[in-house]
Parts: sequence; structure tokens; C-alpha cells
Amino acid sequence: MTDSGTDLARLSLNTATTKRWTLAEAVDGTVRAGLGAIGLWRDRVAEAGLAEAAARVADAGLRVSSLCRGGFLTAADDAGARAALADNRSAVVEAATLGTSVLIMVVGGLPAASTPGGPALPDGDRNLVGARQRVADRIGELVPFALEHGVRLALEPLHPMFAADRAVVSTLKQALDLAAPHPAHAVGVVVDTYHVWWDPELEAQIARAGAQGRLASYQVCDWILPLAADPLLSRGYMGDGYVDFASIGRWVTAAGYTGDIEVEIFNQEVWNTPGDEVLAIITDRYVRHVLPSLTPR
Amino acid sequence: MTDSGTDLARLSLNTATTKRWTLAEAVDGTVRAGLGAIGLWRDRVAEAGLAEAAARVADAGLRVSSLCRGGFLTAADDAGARAALADNRSAVVEAATLGTSVLIMVVGGLPAASTPGGPALPDGDRNLVGARQRVADRIGELVPFALEHGVRLALEPLHPMFAADRAVVSTLKQALDLAAPHPAHAVGVVVDTYHVWWDPELEAQIARAGAQGRLASYQVCDWILPLAADPLLSRGYMGDGYVDFASIGRWVTAAGYTGDIEVEIFNQEVWNTPGDEVLAIITDRYVRHVLPSLTPR
Repeated sequence: MTDSGTDLARLSLNTATTKRWTLAEAVDGTVRAGLGAIGLWRDRVAEAGLAEAAARVADAGLRVSSLCRGGFLTAADDAGARAALADNRSAVVEAATLGTSVLIMVVGGLPAASTPGGPALPDGDRNLVGARQRVADRIGELVPFALEHGVRLALEPLHPMFAADRAVVSTLKQALDLAAPHPAHAVGVVVDTYHVWWDPELEAQIARAGAQGRLASYQVCDWILPLAADPLLSRGYMGDGYVDFASIGRWVTAAGYTGDIEVEIFNQEVWNTPGDEVLAIITDRYVRHVLPSLTPR
Repeated sequence: MTDSGTDLARLSLNTATTKRWTLAEAVDGTVRAGLGAIGLWRDRVAEAGLAEAAARVADAGLRVSSLCRGGFLTAADDAGARAALADNRSAVVEAATLGTSVLIMVVGGLPAASTPGGPALPDGDRNLVGARQRVADRIGELVPFALEHGVRLALEPLHPMFAADRAVVSTLKQALDLAAPHPAHAVGVVVDTYHVWWDPELEAQIARAGAQGRLASYQVCDWILPLAADPLLSRGYMGDGYVDFASIGRWVTAAGYTGDIEVEIFNQEVWNTPGDEVLAIITDRYVRHVLPSLTPR
């Protein structure tokens, strides 16, 4: 546990955490800090150019732990649905090109609220059951394409406070139910501590994900209070809030997860901090709060 | 549906909605608006005096749909636990005196965060599983006392965004699991649309509550965006947000619920509005968005 090269081998920087860095800066910073992997957002990849991004990460010797993100599949109209499916196929191709099999899927909110942070529309479609069915249908449409490209759709349940405007998939159980009709290597699930730490069924559903071989990604950050004015930016460094990383890490390990651990923190204060400082804090918190529970016993 | 006396017979004003009104003002306003019931908060009752409050509500011919609230049972220390149990016994006596069998229970958050809105304490107790077990144990301790007084402990799942600082009971399923060891007339559950509207298991769990005779209270208000700076105050009038009242009302009705429908809105703008105006809006929204689905078919 004192060999930092070993300690940080599974740690991954999600590029949203160091929002001001270009992809090149994030790759260099991740290598400097001794991490083994990087999680990429599509906007940073697009800025760098897909081929250039893929080459740069590969040359740096980093794994790509995930590509963020596909999804937003809840449109109620045909044109919206077609556009979403086309965008998701592009994301699948990008993931394959970048050498990752994990495409994180944020499935989208109610159609009336699908512009994240947009205002409530009194005449909007409030049919949550219907929106969830459309997600199921469209995942099914994407599966053959994802399989052809060796990419797994990793369904991410988001905290229920985002159910209206960002993701109608709110629990790990629900994500696993959506995944169930498809092969495990085609559809997996994401455990992001910020979104699922509160769930009374978390231990059981992580075990279920493990038993089915569907645990595709483990993302960590903390739940801090008070919530930020924009709750999306309310994530904190591990150890600053209420998440029980020891228990969740033990459950994830018991479920057989041996993949990367991505740190994804949306937080204005973190974004205002120089990237190397952020990485120093992250590695310290990871070693203290996350890593101990990841060692199989 | 055009007889307003019939229309509003099951509608109840929760006094937290008209926060600036004294208990006497709330009772008079509720009568003026033609509602059949009122839901009381303990602070308003204490201000008026328990006996005076009971007499005033009874003289006005209103039912007391609930007393808010008992709970906050998660203290990790003996002194804190004893104080919480004593306070809950007082609440049981108050409910019985006021003539309501429904004592709403907000069970409390993690001990480190149990001062609502308080800051995150890095050294706080993050053991959510343990906190939930303490709730189960202390409900068990309160049941005999509640039964003696003819009062039902109505467990309210709160939205998961309050899991750290207010309620470690986050879903209706979890509330029903906590209630299961006890007689249905001793421990029931609350469905508050603001807290549970997002739950993929809501229909099934409302049906389960109905089958067990545990559906003790139905509270309505809307989920609006963006969230208020204090998310506790982010509730909106029915129809202003994303809650599917038609579906949830149908499920509650199918579960056999025939009790009062309480409107509980914490919202600074609503609190700044004169109480009679608030009641006019509430009755209009109730008749349009809530009542149609409450008619058994």
C-alpha cells in the first residue's frame, strides 16, 4: 500500500473534474500524477479531434476507462428519437476508436425538461412510465450496433433529483432491469457514488450486477451539503461529505469489480483550482478513503 | 364534480403551506375555503396551546388529517436516543388529544447531519445502514405507546436528496419494510408526491401499502425546477411542475385510499402570498389536477 505506482494503477481522472484542461493537458496531468487511466468526455475529444485524441492517450500509456456520454433517449417525437439514435451511434464509434468498451449512458429526463436546467413547462409530458419505456425501446435499437463495435452501453442511474431533467433511470435496480433483456457484454451499469449512495437496495443490487457480469464502471465523489445552487455542481472530494466509501467499496469488490475507479467531480470550486492541485487532492483522498476497501479479502 | 362542497370534502390544508398564519387563522381560512380537514404542525399547536388548538379545530368542524411530525430517531448516543423517544411520546399524546390517528414520522438523517441544513462534518457518522437499523429499533420501542393512544406512526419516505440531513428512509418500499413487523394500525406509511414521484417502483409499492392497509396519508405538491437554493423550499403548486398526479392518484385510489388529501407546500413565494389567495390557488389546482383521479372507477 506504500507503492504509489501500485496504489494508483486503477485510478482514473474523468476529464470533467479538470474542466479547464484541454484533452492534451488532462492526459499529461494524469501521467504526471501517476494514474493508470483517464475517462474522456466527448466535448474534449471533439476539440482535439478523434484520431488525435486516440493517439495521444495511447501514446501516453493510459487506459480509457470510459467515454462520457451517450443517452438522452427520451424524445417523444420521431425526429428527436432519430437524432438521438444517430448521436448515440456516433458515440459508439468514438468509444471504439478511443479503445474503450465503456460508453456511459445518461438516458435523459422528461421530454418537457430535457434541456438540462431548463424551466418547468406546465404543458410538458409528465408521463414518466412512458419515458422509461422509450428508453428501454431505444436501448434495444442501439444494442446490435454497439455489439458490432465491441462497445458496451453502460447505463448510469442518476440521483432522483435529476429524474425530471436529466435521467429517468434513478436506481441501480432499474438500470439492471433495463439491461436484463440484453447480453452482459452489450449492456452494463455504472455505480456512481454521488447518485446511488442513499439507496437502501444498493448492496443487493451491486451484488446482482456482479453476478450478472454487468458492473461496467465505478465512479467516486462525495455528497456534500448544502447543495450547490446548481445541484449538478454539488459534488465534492471523497471524504468531504456523507458517502460511506468503505461500505460501497467493499460491496463493489465483493461483486468482483476489478476495473478502473473514475473520479468525476462537477464543482465550480474544483474547476477554479489548478489541475495538478486537484489531482494531488484526488490521489490523497483516493488512497485514504477509497482504495482500502478495494482490496479483495 | 360541480358541487364544490363535495369536491373539497377530502381536501386538507397543511399548516406549513400558510406558514405566516397562526393556528386560529389557518382554521378560519380552511373553513372559509370550504375544505374538510386541516393538517397541523406541532409548532403552531404549541403556540396556540394543545387544549385550545384541539377545541378550536373541533368547534370549526374540521378533521385533523395529520400531526406533523415525530421522528428524528437516528441519534447514535444514548442521551440523544432517549430525548428523541421522549419527544415522540409527547407527539403521540398531542396527536391523540387533537383527535387524529396520523402522526407523520420524518425519521432523521445521519447523526453528523441531523441539524437540518447544517454543514457536512468530515468526521461524522456515515454508516447509513446503521442509522437505518436504529430507526427500526426505535420505531419498535414507540409502537406499544402509540397503540395505547390509538395513534398510528405514519412513516414518511423523503426524497433521497434529504437522506444525509433529514431522513434515511428514502423509498416507499423501505418504509413498508420498516412497518412490516408491526400491526397495520400501529405503523402506516405516507405518500407525498414531492418525495416519491420519481420512484420506478411507486405503483407496485402503493398497491402493496393498500393491500396491507398501511396507506395512512396522501400529500400533494409538485416538483418544480430549477430547485430552490434551499431544496426543502422547492415545492410547487400542483400543475406547475413534473409530477404525474393523474397516474399517482389512480394508484392511490386503486389501493383503496379514501382519506384526506393534504396540500403541503414549503415555498418562500407561497409563504409571501396572502393565505386566502394560496387557498384559492390550491383548491383550483386540486380540482383540476388531483381530484379527477381520486374518483373510484
